[in-house]
Amino acid sequence: MGSRLESSGATASSSSPLVKRLTIIGLGLIGASVGLACRARGLAGEIRGADEEPDHCTHAIALGMVDQVFSDAASAVEGADMVVLAVPVGAIADTIERIAPHLAPGAVVTDVGSVKGPVASAMERLLPGGNGVPGHPIAGRETSGPQAAAAELFVGAKCALTPSRSTDPAAVTRVRALWRAIGSEVLEMSPERHDEIFAAVSHLPHVVAYALMGAILDLAESGEDLRECAGGGLKDFTRVAMSHPVMWRDICLANRQPILEMIGRFQVALDQLTVMIRAEDGEGLYRKFERAKACRDGLNSINEVGDRKHTAQ
Amino acid sequence: MGSRLESSGATASSSSPLVKRLTIIGLGLIGASVGLACRARGLAGEIRGADEEPDHCTHAIALGMVDQVFSDAASAVEGADMVVLAVPVGAIADTIERIAPHLAPGAVVTDVGSVKGPVASAMERLLPGGNGVPGHPIAGRETSGPQAAAAELFVGAKCALTPSRSTDPAAVTRVRALWRAIGSEVLEMSPERHDEIFAAVSHLPHVVAYALMGAILDLAESGEDLRECAGGGLKDFTRVAMSHPVMWRDICLANRQPILEMIGRFQVALDQLTVMIRAEDGEGLYRKFERAKACRDGLNSINEVGDRKHTAQ
Repeated sequence: MGSRLESSGATASSSSPLVKRLTIIGLGLIGASVGLACRARGLAGEIRGADEEPDHCTHAIALGMVDQVFSDAASAVEGADMVVLAVPVGAIADTIERIAPHLAPGAVVTDVGSVKGPVASAMERLLPGGNGVPGHPIAGRETSGPQAAAAELFVGAKCALTPSRSTDPAAVTRVRALWRAIGSEVLEMSPERHDEIFAAVSHLPHVVAYALMGAILDLAESGEDLRECAGGGLKDFTRVAMSHPVMWRDICLANRQPILEMIGRFQVALDQLTVMIRAEDGEGLYRKFERAKACRDGLNSINEVGDRKHTAQ
Repeated sequence: MGSRLESSGATASSSSPLVKRLTIIGLGLIGASVGLACRARGLAGEIRGADEEPDHCTHAIALGMVDQVFSDAASAVEGADMVVLAVPVGAIADTIERIAPHLAPGAVVTDVGSVKGPVASAMERLLPGGNGVPGHPIAGRETSGPQAAAAELFVGAKCALTPSRSTDPAAVTRVRALWRAIGSEVLEMSPERHDEIFAAVSHLPHVVAYALMGAILDLAESGEDLRECAGGGLKDFTRVAMSHPVMWRDICLANRQPILEMIGRFQVALDQLTVMIRAEDGEGLYRKFERAKACRDGLNSINEVGDRKHTAQ
């Protein structure tokens, strides 16, 4: 079942690799970069990939990031001791359901999705042995697909792991070792705390950027002079709107409640500024802007490594 | 009247400069950069500066960007054939009122403020000869003050000039020549159209970024794990909140109506997304995100020159 392509001559460079057979489901930007990163460091004896998109499979083989590719996830995981799910957030639970009956005993399953609560629940339900470890590498690019993949994408980036109480600590140890080996700093937190934090630092900013693009879309389409003036400010601010629409649709649905809660907080803050602008309250505006600047200057002193390269998602 | 400092030995490098005596009022980032840019190119026979901040004056002399500095604008403009006002938007009209009686006949006055309607009105009222040319170089940095100034700040940047019907075309020609000589591409538009455009592409994004910082301030102050995760996304998005609070207070007050109008459009767009998230309308979200991405990808193909360097204000 499932078509199979073989690449010629790609073999592991280490005699005792971290993972014997690594299977990556989903060969988009993140999945393909995990493959390249492991291949470049000889971390896996064998790397298998699966993707429903024939183009992604062809690319993955051509770039040498996998030894074999499959169109079918269930076939790809057979005999694997580590499985990385790099499909959109909305497809993770289904994918686990499909692969679960085909997993080797003791195989560890992790994922790279930007929302962790629903993934943790699906893993608890479908992988009762505790071998599911929800993960989230805080790395990405505006461009997507295996063409944009890079072996160094995760170097200096953070990766959050969000085990639940039923997760086997030995499985967490193995996943942590993989992310560290490809250059990431691993943080641990609960799935719930992860989703609250990313609703604030990533999901809300993206929703706001999409709303901002929405607000000026008609103006931008009709006004050439407006587009000519859309220099640094607007472009910096809306760069995140170049991300893949499916990914952000899935994130909005999967992290609905924390995002709605953050939108509420944002609305309050925007209403306060609007009232001050309307009332020409210069002193109030100054205080708000000064406090925001102080907070932003504080953010600037942390997370300096790889800032230009990484986009939180 | 007004104290005076002299720099030693700074003389113009050209025998027939574009401006005989250039006076720059306000030696912050933009004013000091205009001085450096003109000095580096030998565009002015003499450069005078004025700033109420003694620190700015000391810096300007030390960096050689002016020949003389004054604490008092009225003294500084005497005998000048070109005056550049680089004070905050809220101080421009007052400054014109103070210098007007001291201007030499035919002296051209321009400014660098981010809002043009009130400046155009003040110039029409206070400079009845038509020698006032409202201007807005679309360049800036998050850091402020003369220490951050650079002779190449305007190279590849756009500069908007917004003459009104009573502006003397000869004065516009002179100001255009100055901006071109320091590397900018000059656009012309009405003050009203300028303020509409910048409410959309710059002022709204800044207000939204400030609101976003406001919404997560308390969370960020209390949560170290949250700050640790505030990688690329949030930081890219809120970089604009590092700008000077006085500048943004003045912009919000001076361009109040167009900004309120744009906040209204933004609220509608955000409400639409919120309703879709609440209703779990995946298809609707996908369509919105796809349209925003297409529009943003379109923006990316223009204004590529100097994008990393320039921040629209």
